[in-house]
This record gives sequence, C-alpha cells and structure tokens, in this order.
Amino acid sequence: MAALRTIGPKAAAALDEELMSTGAFSVDQLMELAGLSVAQAMYALSPPQQSPKILVACGPGNNGGDGLVAARHLHHFGYKPTMYFPKQTKNELYQRLRKQLEQLKVPFTDDFVSAAGKSDWIIDAIFGFSFSGEVREPFPAVIKALAESKVPVLAVDAPSSWNIEEGPPKEGPGKDYNPDALVSMTAPKPLIKGFKGRHFVGGRFVGQEIAEKYGFDVPPYQGSDQIVEYGSQGEKL
Amino acid sequence: MAALRTIGPKAAAALDEELMSTGAFSVDQLMELAGLSVAQAMYALSPPQQSPKILVACGPGNNGGDGLVAARHLHHFGYKPTMYFPKQTKNELYQRLRKQLEQLKVPFTDDFVSAAGKSDWIIDAIFGFSFSGEVREPFPAVIKALAESKVPVLAVDAPSSWNIEEGPPKEGPGKDYNPDALVSMTAPKPLIKGFKGRHFVGGRFVGQEIAEKYGFDVPPYQGSDQIVEYGSQGEKL
Repeated sequence: MAALRTIGPKAAAALDEELMSTGAFSVDQLMELAGLSVAQAMYALSPPQQSPKILVACGPGNNGGDGLVAARHLHHFGYKPTMYFPKQTKNELYQRLRKQLEQLKVPFTDDFVSAAGKSDWIIDAIFGFSFSGEVREPFPAVIKALAESKVPVLAVDAPSSWNIEEGPPKEGPGKDYNPDALVSMTAPKPLIKGFKGRHFVGGRFVGQEIAEKYGFDVPPYQGSDQIVEYGSQGEKL
Repeated sequence: MAALRTIGPKAAAALDEELMSTGAFSVDQLMELAGLSVAQAMYALSPPQQSPKILVACGPGNNGGDGLVAARHLHHFGYKPTMYFPKQTKNELYQRLRKQLEQLKVPFTDDFVSAAGKSDWIIDAIFGFSFSGEVREPFPAVIKALAESKVPVLAVDAPSSWNIEEGPPKEGPGKDYNPDALVSMTAPKPLIKGFKGRHFVGGRFVGQEIAEKYGFDVPPYQGSDQIVEYGSQGEKL
C-alpha cells in the first residue's frame, strides 16, 4: 500500500472551511468526532487499567477543543483525566465543553508541571495545524516540561511548537520535544517526516471526493473504528 | 449482573432537556454520538461485506436525525445507504444533516416499499421515545411494510408505532411488527419487555450521577466502544 499523503496548513484550513460551509458541518459535530478519535487513540496506546491518570493540556484554539472533548470520552472509558486549560476564551463552545467536564467532576489544574509528574500519560492538545511563529505565555514552560517529561505524551495533530511543514523547531523549548505518539486529524501534516513515535490518524468524516480534492487519502480505517494506526495496514511513509 | 433498568418517555424527555440546559450539550453533539452508535450497532449485526445495502427510514423528529447521522457513518464504514425521509422540516440541523449526505452522494428515495425489497437491512429511525397516539401519513404503509418485511430491521430506540411503556400496539399496522434488532439510546425504554430480538444500547454520553438521578444504569460498555449488546456481559432482563 502506498504512503499516506500529507496536507499542509493552508490546505487543512481550507478543508475545515469547506466542511463547515458547503459541507454543512457544525464545529460541534467535527470537534466531537475529532475528540472521540483522540480518546480512542489513547485507549489503543494504553487502557485505563494500565494508565488511569491522564493529564490533558489544552490550548486556546480548536486543538484545545479537541482535547476538551477527548477528556470527556476518556472519563466515560474509565480514565481519570485532569485538565490544564490556562487560556480560556469567551468562545461559547469551549465554555460548554468545559461545563460538560465539570458536570462529570473532572478536575482542572493551574500547575502543569506538578500535575504532569502525577500522571500516567499526557495529551498535548495545545497547538494544532494553525500554529506558527512564537510560543506565547504560559506555554514555553509547558513545552519545556513536555520535552523533558518521563511520562509518555500523545500529541494531537502536531507536537506543540513544531513547524507544521518542517517538523521540530531548531531552537526554543520544543527543539528536543519528541512525543511518544501522535494522532493526526483527518490527514497527516508534513511535520510527520520528523516524527518517530506511534502514529494514528483520526477524524473519520471526510469522503473520497473531498480527500482527492485536497490531495490526501482516506486513511485505511477498519470496521467501525474512528482511528487507524499508521503502518498497521502495511503503509510506508 | 442485575438487569438494566429502563427509562420511561417522560424521564427520557427530561434527561434530554437537562443534558442540553445544565449539561451544556448541543443537539449536534448528542445526535452525532447517538447516530454513530446506531451505525456501530449495524456494523455489529452485519458488516458491509455481508450486507452493503442499507435503507434508512427517517421520521420528522430526533429519531430521524439519529438516522441521518447513522447513514453518514455507514457510508464511511463502507456501506451503500439509501435514505427514505418523506417528512422533512425546515429545522436547520436536519437540513444540514441531509446536505452532509448529499455531499457523499447518498441517494434519497420516495418509494419505501420498492427500496426495501432491494436492501440487505433496513434501519427504522421513524419514531422514538416521544411517539404516542396515531401513526400519521405516510407512515402507516411503511410500518405495515416493516411488519411484513423479509429484510431484517434494526429499530432505533423503539420499534416505530410501539407504545413506549407497553410495547407492541394491540391493533393497527404495528401489531405484528417485531424488528430483528433494537438499539436503545442511553437506556432501554419500558417497551423492551415485549421485544424479542438482539438488543444494543448506545449513546455513551451520560455519567453515573445523571444515570442514578434518572433511575437507570450506565450500560456496561467495553473499552472505547460506543455500544454494548445487551446480554453480552451477562445481564438478565
């Protein structure tokens, strides 16, 4: 089977825009399926009997929203998630996603480093495909902690602070950040060429026609799964 | 393991209302997860290699919305769904759900009986827990066709036209309607006592605290599954 093709940040943004305009999807729908696939990737990596305590670090944008949804599903799967969500906006959807977690008594923390040390896995939902430029406060210290973490990390769509096209940055706290696993949303981003860990693709909501238009492949999902592990069906990068 | 407790139509309506008010869920979110679990139940019953052609009959309310979402996921799972959706409202969500199917070139038909004869399975998403009283046009003939169908049927939340508390009606087209399978949303309804087929529960979005408040049990979901087959974990009715 041929390699899965990648999709750059501009095409990924255009695809999101098309799904929500002519595609008639709501952000709620897409984020629900994206977050569910993050939770399923976590389950495939390590079930709650092995690793109950998951710290979910959420950024201020859509990547953070995927993390908020993922944490709710993780709770239902039997995990004990803890949230780090330091830059909360007034966006109504994110306020609702937060409230859904509060109803389940999922705790929020302001101290990433301390919470990380008590966790079995960390989910990095800080920055996604729209990241570029500088890592702003309070995230430089978080990226540094992720880079130095002995606790394994699952990154959502991109290891935060990585250049979406090029991969790991040449300087700054993300220079030595190599998460153990990555779940790409819809299609892998070009940064995948610099990634060495286990790689999943999730976000099973794009048909063949749209995938062809944007120059990627519908991943080889099996059965009713919402994720596929890259390489598990014999693909080569 | 004890029997799964049931939830009557008034409590089910109050639960939906609570999830969308204090629970802060959108209909989009809940319907996406409900519809996904319908599609996963279909997959558990018969994968697309065995039964590619699925006719999805959608009513005008939320049960029909679950069917519209399920059909989209069935397409992504490799099925060839066909839609029967005769009473379309101006509700913006259902218009979007329809458009999402049209983008995938999923066909719509006006002739239920003819389409049913060409199908491998039928999904009955006509009426759900809020049904009471008379079956209105054009659905009496559809219920009659479902009752007489040689093609197996999966009903969503309730076999359409059944009394939610009492089970099969004593007269009318639904008197002899006994679908092969049922997927209950969130919790089984009291009608389950009159049901003889395979029974799944889906809609994995309610925590223990809410379940206790409404007098039912969180179903014994396994792993990251969105459905559980009733009886598969040893429960008794």
